[in-house]
Amino acid sequence: MRETGRRVLPSTRGVPNGRSFGMPRAKQLKKTCNNFKITILCGFVTILVLRGTIGVGNFGGGDAGEVSESVAKQNARVLEEIRHEPDDEEDQMQLKIDPNSTFVYSLGPKISDWDQQRETWLKENPQFPSSINGRSRILLVTGSPPSPCDNPVGDHYLLKSIKNKIDYCRLHGIEIVYNMAHLDKEMAGYWAKLPLIRRLMLSHPEVEWIWWMDSDAMFTDMVFELPLEKYKDYNFILHGWDKEIYGRKSWIGLNTGSFLLRNCQWSLDVLDAWAPMGPKGQIRDEAGRVLTAFFEGRPAFEADDQSALIYMFITQKKLWGDKVFLENSYYLHGFWVGVVDKYEEMVRNYHPGFGDDRWPFVTHFVGCKPCGSYADYPLERCLKSMERAFNFADNQILQIYGFRHQKLGSAKVKRTRNETALPLEVKDEFNIQHPSFTGQKSL
Amino acid sequence: MRETGRRVLPSTRGVPNGRSFGMPRAKQLKKTCNNFKITILCGFVTILVLRGTIGVGNFGGGDAGEVSESVAKQNARVLEEIRHEPDDEEDQMQLKIDPNSTFVYSLGPKISDWDQQRETWLKENPQFPSSINGRSRILLVTGSPPSPCDNPVGDHYLLKSIKNKIDYCRLHGIEIVYNMAHLDKEMAGYWAKLPLIRRLMLSHPEVEWIWWMDSDAMFTDMVFELPLEKYKDYNFILHGWDKEIYGRKSWIGLNTGSFLLRNCQWSLDVLDAWAPMGPKGQIRDEAGRVLTAFFEGRPAFEADDQSALIYMFITQKKLWGDKVFLENSYYLHGFWVGVVDKYEEMVRNYHPGFGDDRWPFVTHFVGCKPCGSYADYPLERCLKSMERAFNFADNQILQIYGFRHQKLGSAKVKRTRNETALPLEVKDEFNIQHPSFTGQKSL
Repeated sequence: MRETGRRVLPSTRGVPNGRSFGMPRAKQLKKTCNNFKITILCGFVTILVLRGTIGVGNFGGGDAGEVSESVAKQNARVLEEIRHEPDDEEDQMQLKIDPNSTFVYSLGPKISDWDQQRETWLKENPQFPSSINGRSRILLVTGSPPSPCDNPVGDHYLLKSIKNKIDYCRLHGIEIVYNMAHLDKEMAGYWAKLPLIRRLMLSHPEVEWIWWMDSDAMFTDMVFELPLEKYKDYNFILHGWDKEIYGRKSWIGLNTGSFLLRNCQWSLDVLDAWAPMGPKGQIRDEAGRVLTAFFEGRPAFEADDQSALIYMFITQKKLWGDKVFLENSYYLHGFWVGVVDKYEEMVRNYHPGFGDDRWPFVTHFVGCKPCGSYADYPLERCLKSMERAFNFADNQILQIYGFRHQKLGSAKVKRTRNETALPLEVKDEFNIQHPSFTGQKSL
Repeated sequence: MRETGRRVLPSTRGVPNGRSFGMPRAKQLKKTCNNFKITILCGFVTILVLRGTIGVGNFGGGDAGEVSESVAKQNARVLEEIRHEPDDEEDQMQLKIDPNSTFVYSLGPKISDWDQQRETWLKENPQFPSSINGRSRILLVTGSPPSPCDNPVGDHYLLKSIKNKIDYCRLHGIEIVYNMAHLDKEMAGYWAKLPLIRRLMLSHPEVEWIWWMDSDAMFTDMVFELPLEKYKDYNFILHGWDKEIYGRKSWIGLNTGSFLLRNCQWSLDVLDAWAPMGPKGQIRDEAGRVLTAFFEGRPAFEADDQSALIYMFITQKKLWGDKVFLENSYYLHGFWVGVVDKYEEMVRNYHPGFGDDRWPFVTHFVGCKPCGSYADYPLERCLKSMERAFNFADNQILQIYGFRHQKLGSAKVKRTRNETALPLEVKDEFNIQHPSFTGQKSL
């Protein structure tokens, strides 16, 4: 519509029935038409702005790579239901604690004879031994919430992360429990692992070690095996440094993203002693203030399981210290920053099996939070790094089958050797699939 | 802004410089003001419509449950890179087939003595037997593409699906391979399972059965075990009906979403005979036309692995028929429609272990395609049904630990029994965790 000059709205004077006083019919019609034109113009501008800003133009059909608006709406409805189930009365009550009450949180009824219970059970159930082929039975435990991630790409990386764990555990005879249930509403978030681990210990007497691993941690050395013989006198193995904990009292002196806990009475006791700072709400908030005051450099936020554990180790060293092994000779947990950029260099200079800075056992994406909304690092950097770690690990699996990724940032794979009519004469490069080591001592 | 009467735009007559001819300055200013008001009004309407339609108002910050625009942009950039890696020259060449060439697709070099090779290897490697505790070693194989789903919620259900498989396989001593690599560009999509299965057979001589299961199939009977003794004289077990295949010649007379293939020479031969309709492009399209012409009611689309297999069974019955077992006494594959609405009824009347219409072994979400963009059923219906199936199965696991979902549509769980200081005296309801059955015959 070309404008040859400015238009102006004339004033009107109190015409309640909407008709201009004394205006001829033809002019009335013209007025109506002009009003209509303004309405259309405003609507047109609205649509243009919509399309330009949001790109909303694909109502149905569209590119196979795009999700139509109707699909997005259906998604949104279902996701909304899954994410925001209304709290029932019981939930509401649990979140408020009467300061005058004698509320004490407990993970469960006190058990004092778990070692005896377990020993008796194992004797009575020889078909479920606690070691197989001379190696202690390990149960790897991980998980994520039952609702889709706030950030949709988060679910894709949870999927890749569990595939990665499936690969390692298949090669090493380790069973996996992937938890997606909130067993205890009070112990939500990072504290959820405590009631979960306790529950699994008590239900799996055949398991010698529970291995907790965060969903944002990946195996990057598919050959490395835990040196269980080092831990025969210990019950709790975490990555960390004695001097950082007991000397510098650092709240990041160890990492609770990947640790081993022996299935025994001592461990039930440590879980009981660890839990009190966890219950969500007033208790966790107050405990957070205690921890922030105690630890230099710890930001102000609610109590997290890691700070709480370190606090407990420091203040109750005599109770727990002798059975805690702070491991730093290999990357039981490997902080991703500084590691992920070196994978190509590692491939050039080393090989899987070291598990340390030469070839990290575990690469742990602390602070990335791809499932959530708020992270400590740019999302793009995190996603690309996770993709690299995944492919770096995947290459070690694929080489068994004669493939590898074209490059660490690429999902595409290529052959590393030709197919043959004598496949059993081909050994995989790292002898991962049918390794020669067997019969390790039970620990 | 209250309007007391209609406004009308006066006509103008050819005023090139935008000023009304001969209008006093005060009136000029008033005109300018009124024009400005119209501009503001249109802009205001635009913003209102934007907010009302799209809800665009959360630029940065906002609710923890929302993904900010900058996060969405970062996601989009990274996902774009992962999804749309440029085809390299090799890829481009493979997609075009010279009709004059003597191109013949092959899964790999012809092997004719696989049974002997495998037998020799097993004798030389007694530490990797093909049966454990008297039960044949099974490898469950599944997978999904390496890029995030077109529909973001798809990754969440892939995650739930693999968690479900992990649970079943842990209880039944079955190893899992989750494939996310395109091993053969020509055999993309549903055909990807053929080169994958062949590769795994040849790399895993210790495995007696390969069990392919689609990513959209879930275990819904955690107790049921495959009756392997029935299959001692067969090599290929699929859900289906003889009369549907050989009688009615139905293209859905069996289902390739969940099947067993014995690791033997016969199976390598069947894969070789099955593969020719698979290569993407001209071959697959032409094969699709052949299949559509052959099968009554089959829509026109490229050759799919299922139709191709049925075609092969029908036209080459003498070659393959005697070693194919079409199983329908339990739900090795259970079509979800009609099943998912009956879970509550099943819980009331039956218990896990039947594996059939009373308590389906596998619920398979054929046609739902939550990872893609186009499905045969409304997405919302599919997602809700998958959530129900997942929780129905999860309840069978959670009851081991004393929990269950509040209802089948809910992620929330509740206790089914109190914690106790004597946890080993509690038997799980279906005796799933430490079952009494052991020592089945090797088949």
